[in-house]
Amino acid sequence: MKDFEFYNPVKIFFGKDQVPRITELIPSGSKIMLIYGGGSIFKNGVYDRIKVALKEFDLTEFGGIEANPTYETSMKAVQIIKQKNINYLVAAGGGSVIDATKFIAAAALYKDGDPWKILSESAEVTDAIPFGCILTLPATGTEMNKNSVISKISTTEKMAFSVTPVFPKFSILLPDAAGTLPKKQVANGIVDAFVHVTEQYLTYPVNAPIQDRFAEAIMITLIEEAPKVYANPANYEAMSNLMWSATMALNGIISCGVPGDWSVHSIGHELTAFHGIDHARTLAIVLPGLWKTLKEEKKGKLLQYGERVWGINSGTEEERVNAAIDMTEKFFQSLGIGTRLSDYGVKKDTIDRIIKRFEERKWLSMGDRDLTTLELTRKALEIQL
Amino acid sequence: MKDFEFYNPVKIFFGKDQVPRITELIPSGSKIMLIYGGGSIFKNGVYDRIKVALKEFDLTEFGGIEANPTYETSMKAVQIIKQKNINYLVAAGGGSVIDATKFIAAAALYKDGDPWKILSESAEVTDAIPFGCILTLPATGTEMNKNSVISKISTTEKMAFSVTPVFPKFSILLPDAAGTLPKKQVANGIVDAFVHVTEQYLTYPVNAPIQDRFAEAIMITLIEEAPKVYANPANYEAMSNLMWSATMALNGIISCGVPGDWSVHSIGHELTAFHGIDHARTLAIVLPGLWKTLKEEKKGKLLQYGERVWGINSGTEEERVNAAIDMTEKFFQSLGIGTRLSDYGVKKDTIDRIIKRFEERKWLSMGDRDLTTLELTRKALEIQL
Repeated sequence: MKDFEFYNPVKIFFGKDQVPRITELIPSGSKIMLIYGGGSIFKNGVYDRIKVALKEFDLTEFGGIEANPTYETSMKAVQIIKQKNINYLVAAGGGSVIDATKFIAAAALYKDGDPWKILSESAEVTDAIPFGCILTLPATGTEMNKNSVISKISTTEKMAFSVTPVFPKFSILLPDAAGTLPKKQVANGIVDAFVHVTEQYLTYPVNAPIQDRFAEAIMITLIEEAPKVYANPANYEAMSNLMWSATMALNGIISCGVPGDWSVHSIGHELTAFHGIDHARTLAIVLPGLWKTLKEEKKGKLLQYGERVWGINSGTEEERVNAAIDMTEKFFQSLGIGTRLSDYGVKKDTIDRIIKRFEERKWLSMGDRDLTTLELTRKALEIQL
Repeated sequence: MKDFEFYNPVKIFFGKDQVPRITELIPSGSKIMLIYGGGSIFKNGVYDRIKVALKEFDLTEFGGIEANPTYETSMKAVQIIKQKNINYLVAAGGGSVIDATKFIAAAALYKDGDPWKILSESAEVTDAIPFGCILTLPATGTEMNKNSVISKISTTEKMAFSVTPVFPKFSILLPDAAGTLPKKQVANGIVDAFVHVTEQYLTYPVNAPIQDRFAEAIMITLIEEAPKVYANPANYEAMSNLMWSATMALNGIISCGVPGDWSVHSIGHELTAFHGIDHARTLAIVLPGLWKTLKEEKKGKLLQYGERVWGINSGTEEERVNAAIDMTEKFFQSLGIGTRLSDYGVKKDTIDRIIKRFEERKWLSMGDRDLTTLELTRKALEIQL
């Protein structure tokens, strides 16, 4: 394996009855902003549970965080925080709410002009308002990392940042609340978590057997639990296993000492930015396309993945690689998720726009060994038309 | 899975050239005590690397921590720390040095009488001197947890404590330094890490597939890497994989939401306390004995372990269980580690002494579902005579 650093100080509380813990986790006397999204926390009862737990605190509410959380909405929260001297945030909902809260936490203390620079220029973030999360949707893993993805409506951009001050102080994971999710969101969460794993695994072998097997463990578990939890999100045991898989997929453990390749995400973000396609669905389109165009370069890991995750033991190397990619695409489709651009009405002109934007950003190549060139990106998307 | 909490704030730096990092990790102006053991850090060059990295600091050295670190030696360090107002500790060496440093860090700030009470009475520890670790021996996992085991010479006791203030601030893991270890210590480390995994895995199924597969991933990796690193500790890649396996085996990840059974350790500690047998070797004796006496109660997990870790797919359930235990015992033996009490000259009277001591401590049963009664402990040890 390669040399590495690892640090993850997020306190995790997992299970049914963990909401009351926030009372002891937040310093007494804190002025809190409770941040949420479109209101699912009212339907699943989490809002009421939080209100009871936080009844001793000065509480301001801020709802309306979008599925792809925006700079514009986040900045409205920042304004209120400054007006009211709020000094602790609680994010309640899914990954979007937590990502927005991370940006809000950093932007509220940012002193060097427009906080969008945190994303567009990777401007340094030295401090952030402390916050905790109450997670009701397994998917992004943001509840246990320092990453966030924010969209800017005015420029149709979607960008990521990752800084130590936005590690959550704690995250409470509620599989019971996730049991009330619509199937579509459950399916998205499964695919999102699955592709987080492949981005840290499907590169080239570096003799890191622990990391490989952990990654395979998460993928096998997702494949096993997916039909159960998709059929019935209220299956508490299956939802628990999905939820912990999604957290483990992106808390830094499986990326220790191994190369990564986040090309699928980088390309997928543009499909969301231009067409508003759900994040997970963009990944389900781009991943098979990239693998099909990089069969030779990623052969070692594709064969290992096929064998250990899908049990593909027979056939020529080419047949096994093809089978591994095919089974992955069929897995996504089994969750009602289209893997072709045409499934979403996207045509060739979008590919041109994406390539043009990467050129403008001077992203001429990216990913594992810089294999994802503009030419390759074009091919990978055309193959999925 | 069961509800759980997880928290682990230790910063990990893994690889060859990480020692100079300590300069930036320790607050400038700190008065440091460098704690080490029998002097291996002089032979493997780590002492010189540390001295260079810490040249700007006020540094006091304290060597001589024993393989089973003692209360008596630790208290000498505490005295010097108080005299010199030392406010940062650096542990350099293996698990024993780090365990001693944890006790020293807590004892130096303990205000309620004799610090032995931290072990004997589980007395509360509210504060500890901050410390970092430089690990040269993969084995105990103490570099990334809050646990410590200390022996008291005057009473031939060996006891454990686990408290949040003794999480290391950072741990630097040096596979290259570990490459100079004697084979015997490498073998001990492999068995120690392996049994840490079984203590968190070999209980009963609770539908926790991620945790099970992570545990299996560590055991399979240890089994694969063991012959390579035992044959040649300087095999850097194999040693790296062993080192990271040992850390992952006891940093809390694999115990999330699953039952544990630390009976092997509890019984093994007494063999060390009475006869000075290396910790890992006591585990290699007790583990097969306990499994042989609990075949029926642990059948579910023994079958899963046999199949997934050792590839045992055929035979009756009883045959498969027996094969799994047998292969485990042979694995320990392949590393030159005896698994019978007679290998260490220990006779039946020691079993009587251990049972008597457990009775005195009112440890009438322990472990997974309280299965390890005094009667069962006796049987498990007699089977390994």
